[in-house]
Amino acid sequence: MPRVSQDHLEARRRQILDGSRVCFARYGYEGATVRRLEEATGLSRGAIFHHFRDKESLFLALAEEDAARMADVVAAQGLVQVMRDLLAGGEHPADWLGTRLEVSRRLRTDPEFRGRWAERSEQLTAATRKRLLRQRDAGILRDDVDVDVLTSYLELVLEGLVSHLAMGLPAENLGPVLDLVEESVRRHRVRASVEP
Amino acid sequence: MPRVSQDHLEARRRQILDGSRVCFARYGYEGATVRRLEEATGLSRGAIFHHFRDKESLFLALAEEDAARMADVVAAQGLVQVMRDLLAGGEHPADWLGTRLEVSRRLRTDPEFRGRWAERSEQLTAATRKRLLRQRDAGILRDDVDVDVLTSYLELVLEGLVSHLAMGLPAENLGPVLDLVEESVRRHRVRASVEP
Repeated sequence: MPRVSQDHLEARRRQILDGSRVCFARYGYEGATVRRLEEATGLSRGAIFHHFRDKESLFLALAEEDAARMADVVAAQGLVQVMRDLLAGGEHPADWLGTRLEVSRRLRTDPEFRGRWAERSEQLTAATRKRLLRQRDAGILRDDVDVDVLTSYLELVLEGLVSHLAMGLPAENLGPVLDLVEESVRRHRVRASVEP
Repeated sequence: MPRVSQDHLEARRRQILDGSRVCFARYGYEGATVRRLEEATGLSRGAIFHHFRDKESLFLALAEEDAARMADVVAAQGLVQVMRDLLAGGEHPADWLGTRLEVSRRLRTDPEFRGRWAERSEQLTAATRKRLLRQRDAGILRDDVDVDVLTSYLELVLEGLVSHLAMGLPAENLGPVLDLVEESVRRHRVRASVEP
């Protein structure tokens, strides 16, 4: 094997991740055959599986990348913003939704996958919890409900949203619902005075 | 065909519905073969399909029955109580969950099913909306958010809960989350004075 630079390896890895993301989103995990992954990435199976042990590892790398990206948004803007991004569509949110849906489906149908996914999903919970604690310190968050309960609440709503979108149900009226979710974790202000 | 009484027909129909419910819950829609439906109901395929045109009709009859039962609970106790029942397990809730999960799965994977299900799911939304309007009149519900938004909010949380349970995630800590959901649709009282 010729010696390749670190940059080149990184670029290849990126190329595989980006191409296979589109492929998984379009065909689902089962439908993303090695043949289709080759087409989507423009690389041979040899090149792909030089970087990733197998399809499962490739998918987990993608899902992990998305979870990290979601955790970044959570840290900066909160989990409700992640949900708003999902609603708004656009470039990145659609990416998240694809892997997130596939993760949800596999969690339902593949008990073994649960274990492998558990530690990876932990980071989103941790990021959410951390941000809520920071907001509590800043006096923004309500302080009469445990932060763990608020974290579970937001994650449950996110699950509902993912499921709702997966079922192809209309989502254009969900903006005000997310406003309500956001307001219900905040320190109480007299409701009549909340900005419209 | 011998003449059979109305009661007998009803009892047969009941026998088929009860048996096939268990069968669908255990094997899923695809896995509930005619052979398994015969075993589960103790009746021949001839008898089963005398009462229901095909497997799809049988499943829809079950799902419709569950949706009507959920709508009854909603009318009497609200959608949050439906969620509490789901959490508590027990006889009926587990039934609901089985068909509900299967409906969710088919909505995701079978676009044609969406149309056939849409009108049936309408009754749960209608029951929720009606109860919320009644609670608003009684001064229990908050009145600064549109009832349609509150309805969508509760349905979104229910979806999240169904998805959460389907993924086999831990649910024992979700009671306080449902308390928060319930409180967030109610007319504001000073939070510190809310009963623990």
